[in-house]
Amino acid sequence: MLYLGDVARQPYGTKSPRTVTRYAVQAAEFLVEKGIKALVVACNTASAVALDAIAERFPHLPVLGVVEAGADGAAKASADGRIVVAATEGTCRSQAYERAIARRREGARVRCVPCPLFVALAEEGLTDGPIVDSVARHYLGSLFDGSEAGDCLVLGCTHFPLLAPALARLAGPDVTLVDCAEATASMLVRRLAGREAPPGGGGLQLISTDAPERFARMVGKLFPALGPAPEVELADL
Amino acid sequence: MLYLGDVARQPYGTKSPRTVTRYAVQAAEFLVEKGIKALVVACNTASAVALDAIAERFPHLPVLGVVEAGADGAAKASADGRIVVAATEGTCRSQAYERAIARRREGARVRCVPCPLFVALAEEGLTDGPIVDSVARHYLGSLFDGSEAGDCLVLGCTHFPLLAPALARLAGPDVTLVDCAEATASMLVRRLAGREAPPGGGGLQLISTDAPERFARMVGKLFPALGPAPEVELADL
Repeated sequence: MLYLGDVARQPYGTKSPRTVTRYAVQAAEFLVEKGIKALVVACNTASAVALDAIAERFPHLPVLGVVEAGADGAAKASADGRIVVAATEGTCRSQAYERAIARRREGARVRCVPCPLFVALAEEGLTDGPIVDSVARHYLGSLFDGSEAGDCLVLGCTHFPLLAPALARLAGPDVTLVDCAEATASMLVRRLAGREAPPGGGGLQLISTDAPERFARMVGKLFPALGPAPEVELADL
Repeated sequence: MLYLGDVARQPYGTKSPRTVTRYAVQAAEFLVEKGIKALVVACNTASAVALDAIAERFPHLPVLGVVEAGADGAAKASADGRIVVAATEGTCRSQAYERAIARRREGARVRCVPCPLFVALAEEGLTDGPIVDSVARHYLGSLFDGSEAGDCLVLGCTHFPLLAPALARLAGPDVTLVDCAEATASMLVRRLAGREAPPGGGGLQLISTDAPERFARMVGKLFPALGPAPEVELADL
């Protein structure tokens, strides 16, 4: 498994579709040159706006985005079809979640809310406490009250699961939180079923476009099984 | 006057010195090709880490940074030399303010505090109110109390003057706020004294590396004299 983090040019969520597409296609080209046999676009904004451009550029490569997986999860988890998506500006503007959920569940009411500060909070490691609570109320406070209250909250940006405890508290016990990661992993397993394993077995190679030591420390914290500072390669995109 | 905003790759404040230098030198090259006769690095992080690299690459071009100007302002404004600098992670890590202030004022006590969320708040237009107050308290709450209380607060990132009212309230009436912009402009006027004006007189050309319409709206809000949506050119760096 190759993991490429475009740390130098993140966040993608505030950029135009044109620039996100340009960066995402560059990243895909870099990985295709390394010989990958499938690509997961593990960023909601890039999945929302650049998936078609990547698929067009590499017509023979299986390309999976996280938006389809999140939409799948929401369509299944929502009791009454009142779905709130917390996402970036770019993802909301694209209306990718609205379209993907409508294909799976007729009559669903989808409200996509741009929550750009959540990205900065997660990046800084400020994932719970009074500041997170007040920012969460600022964006989502009115959406889980009354007869139109959401019954499902999609964490529509890869950063947001880090804030899940605070968001669950705000949404209340009757609201299901949907994380795109597990659904995406299952989808990938199905797509790769029957394909040959790489010679020499699996493995993980981490690549970052900036500050590999800082990236290694963050990965070490999120995935303790990899050790405190796993090896990270630097790539200039 | 040419103004280049590297909107596509901002923020610079969380990136490594290597990447900030690479991007800043690219931006300088782009502007030098346009025939500029002086360069203001109007970003604290790039001023803190990339000024020498730019000056080395263009030895005959006058290159001014905002850190020197901010340090100048602080050294003059501070009553007792207890200076607090609110800045990005990159600017604080570089210790550029500590060095620049020490050259101007012996015995000054400089505390540089990384305030990354201020950038996200300013970018989102959330410049005052309870969320800004609580984030400001989170970063700076303890620095303006007691015998070691700061007597001067440097707004050490070009975004931070947008939060000035909230920061002034937190710091209290006895603390002087230092904005680098005016000091930088005066410095530039002195450096260019006696130089010829461009043929045809002055003018302003705005260039952005992403989303020129969004950039134009933001400029129009900050500088109403330019009209609601001034013309902005797109450049791919």
